[in-house]
Amino acid sequence: MDEGAILQELGTRIRAQRKRIGLTQEALALVANVDRSYYGAVERGERNVTFTVLCRLCIALRCDVAALTEALPPGE
Amino acid sequence: MDEGAILQELGTRIRAQRKRIGLTQEALALVANVDRSYYGAVERGERNVTFTVLCRLCIALRCDVAALTEALPPGE
Repeated sequence: MDEGAILQELGTRIRAQRKRIGLTQEALALVANVDRSYYGAVERGERNVTFTVLCRLCIALRCDVAALTEALPPGE
Repeated sequence: MDEGAILQELGTRIRAQRKRIGLTQEALALVANVDRSYYGAVERGERNVTFTVLCRLCIALRCDVAALTEALPPGE
C-alpha cells in the first residue's frame, strides 16, 4: 500500500470539494477549526489526518467521509 | 461534534465488516499488520486511527473506506 499516494489522493479530493463549495483554504481552515498551514499540508497530502480531524474537515466541506473515500485504498 | 460517539460508531462498523468476512480479531490484526490489542481498542472506539491505518484495516476487511463511513460524521 503506497501511503504517500493515498494521502495525496485524499488531499486532492478534499481540495476539489472545497472548491466545489467555493471556500478559500483560509475560510475552510477557520470553519474546521484547524491551523491554516496544517490544512494546506493536508490538501498537499503531507499530513496523515486522524479520523476525527477528517470528520471535522467533512463538516466544513459539507460532505460525509464516504464522499471523499470511494475506492480508497485502491483495489478494495 | 461528539468525537467519542463517532469513533464508537466507526469501531462498530469495523467489527460488523470483520464478522461479515468471518475473521477473528487476531486474524484481522495479523493481516492488517497492527497490534492485536490496538485492534481490539479500535473496535471499541478507543483509538482515533489515522487515515493510513484505516486504509490498512480496510484492505484486511476487503472494503474501501467509503463502505465504513456513509453518513459519518452524522448530519453531513
